[in-house]
Amino acid sequence: MKLALLEQLRQRNPLVFTIANFVTVNDVANGLIAIGAAPMMSLEPAEAQEMVTAADGITLNLGTLTQQQIGQMHSVGYYAQLANKPVVLDPVAVGAIAFRKKIAREILAAFPVNLIRGNAGEITALVDVAWQAKGVDAGHGEADLQKVAKQVAQRYDCVVVITGPTDIVTDGQRLTLIENGSALFPLMTGSGDLLSSICAAFLALTTETVDDFSAVTAACQIYATTGELAAQSLTAELPNSFRTALIDRLHTVTVAEIEKVARYQELK
Amino acid sequence: MKLALLEQLRQRNPLVFTIANFVTVNDVANGLIAIGAAPMMSLEPAEAQEMVTAADGITLNLGTLTQQQIGQMHSVGYYAQLANKPVVLDPVAVGAIAFRKKIAREILAAFPVNLIRGNAGEITALVDVAWQAKGVDAGHGEADLQKVAKQVAQRYDCVVVITGPTDIVTDGQRLTLIENGSALFPLMTGSGDLLSSICAAFLALTTETVDDFSAVTAACQIYATTGELAAQSLTAELPNSFRTALIDRLHTVTVAEIEKVARYQELK
Amino acid sequence: MKLALLEQLRQRNPLVFTIANFVTVNDVANGLIAIGAAPMMSLEPAEAQEMVTAADGITLNLGTLTQQQIGQMHSVGYYAQLANKPVVLDPVAVGAIAFRKKIAREILAAFPVNLIRGNAGEITALVDVAWQAKGVDAGHGEADLQKVAKQVAQRYDCVVVITGPTDIVTDGQRLTLIENGSALFPLMTGSGDLLSSICAAFLALTTETVDDFSAVTAACQIYATTGELAAQSLTAELPNSFRTALIDRLHTVTVAEIEKVARYQELK
Repeated sequence: MKLALLEQLRQRNPLVFTIANFVTVNDVANGLIAIGAAPMMSLEPAEAQEMVTAADGITLNLGTLTQQQIGQMHSVGYYAQLANKPVVLDPVAVGAIAFRKKIAREILAAFPVNLIRGNAGEITALVDVAWQAKGVDAGHGEADLQKVAKQVAQRYDCVVVITGPTDIVTDGQRLTLIENGSALFPLMTGSGDLLSSICAAFLALTTETVDDFSAVTAACQIYATTGELAAQSLTAELPNSFRTALIDRLHTVTVAEIEKVARYQELK
Repeated sequence: MKLALLEQLRQRNPLVFTIANFVTVNDVANGLIAIGAAPMMSLEPAEAQEMVTAADGITLNLGTLTQQQIGQMHSVGYYAQLANKPVVLDPVAVGAIAFRKKIAREILAAFPVNLIRGNAGEITALVDVAWQAKGVDAGHGEADLQKVAKQVAQRYDCVVVITGPTDIVTDGQRLTLIENGSALFPLMTGSGDLLSSICAAFLALTTETVDDFSAVTAACQIYATTGELAAQSLTAELPNSFRTALIDRLHTVTVAEIEKVARYQELK
Repeated sequence: MKLALLEQLRQRNPLVFTIANFVTVNDVANGLIAIGAAPMMSLEPAEAQEMVTAADGITLNLGTLTQQQIGQMHSVGYYAQLANKPVVLDPVAVGAIAFRKKIAREILAAFPVNLIRGNAGEITALVDVAWQAKGVDAGHGEADLQKVAKQVAQRYDCVVVITGPTDIVTDGQRLTLIENGSALFPLMTGSGDLLSSICAAFLALTTETVDDFSAVTAACQIYATTGELAAQSLTAELPNSFRTALIDRLHTVTVAEIEKVARYQELK
């Protein structure tokens, strides 16, 4: 697990352009700054090409998409592919809303993405596996999520993350289970959106020896562990104090602190 | 006062679709999660019908409306009426901005709502009673607010809440005054918007024996009392710490805690 | 330094209409309330004239502008000039994105503004002085920022503020350096946006004996010092706790507290 990427990220300060969900955009920006990246948001298609040129990583968040944002996402995807910039897709609520699933599939058909990150309800929906999603929440179901994650990764030739009590990270072959975390994550709206944009920052650090899968696995491990540490600092189950503690802790956490408590399994 | 509805809400986890004010949307989402509901937001008219189908309760917040949102609200209202889903209208700033008053009235003419929640400046404006509203704030005036609230409730055949130092809840006949609260509420932007969406969550719990008036009264009592408890936990008048404490407390507060300090008057 | 304007602001409670950046809008609203002003936001051109009429001060924030917002800004600028309401321009990211620089210049050509507030990357861009801006951040460069600030102030006949480790305030002749502050300010997204809107509130207090330069200088000194006090209350470099502490402190800070620690230089 390449946890030392956290130190590289803080040196490089990658610029992450997020087409953002208006519910969670402020926490995404503050969380990116806290961990050591730089946020940039835009709603205007006319500046899509310039934003891509400036960016080191890009996140497309479907959380509160509009027709205008859909056009902007296609524009951004086109320029990102030309410029070889890493792209993360966060398919918010595609498990609950058929309109969004259609939009997500059109995006995935139009240009390549490096990572799809969602909850169980969202990722299962992309391959029409039965699951009861609930709004933006994971919902419940009986599917084999490791298998589904691999299937989505293979179909779209990208890394896939399913976040939940245990996070699943796969590139279709390798699969890592991340066992750190906190029950407070699902009580904070945007905790998943922030992870997606942090993954985009880590994807800006790939090299010949650090591939997308390694970068995303490290990002997810660092995020889950930081949340666990943040939750431990609270005296009770306090969801809004957790938000503050998480963003604070993203700024102060060290690789050594994470290594000490990281729990994960690397599977085939 | 049916305060035990709080426990039912936490068991049922109603999904609240809010057409939201972009200033306050994050606190609305986190506050809904904290109390035990599930938030969903959307800006896109094309998914209006699906959002209504998925939702247990709906809030239309005029706080930062656009022409596109107005169309979306009419669409959502139409589908909500067909599907018999409870609708809350939060007529932000209709007391200060004539354009918004016109939009609010068109909404109220187009489809029924279960609740209108606003401050004194907003509710008086709906029936053209003299009042000096100031932007999104209540402003000041001499009108008999209990009378105005009943008048609005009768005209639009719905429950009406006027929030302020004392909250007024009426269905046009019954009227309850809620005397808990905190001077910190008006220092937190969106404290009213969050209450509107929490009321939508409680309106999802109505049954043959729990009507809209009872559900809304309980919601307002629980919210005002939780704010009072949150304010008591602070060492000074700290508005942003209050925001955090309020959302935290919505998660931890119990029916027994509320019963112990609830102060209200049930009037004819 | 007219620091007592803070007390006048709290008595007058000026209404500030901000065409806002959706990333930071919530903190701008809460920060304005905290210091003693009243916030109002709008996305809808149809209510531009009414918003200007109601407002005591206006901020145009380019942070996440759209074509629709550009039209709204021109409308608002037109009505503000007619009604003689003070206008602040916050030219977010004009140093990094050419599209935004073009829009900012069109705004500055169309109607007068009282203040332009930005970081070094943004203000240098307005007069095409070489600087390496990075996204919404200041970036780095070798230009003489005091000279650039004066040049921009003279060209656009307004007050100019460049925020940074030392803030520069000038009207093209007088120039004040504000030396208070905190390294935590750049870790909070929107810390500059909030200052711009606070400046608009102070610009509502000008009289025959308090001109725009004096009002803006006081606003910047009060804000920088309050941030310094907020940072001192923290036990570590905690960016999200700083946000909460800053907004809390804007509510509780007194003129006497600021006078005690204010550090500034008044230059020609």
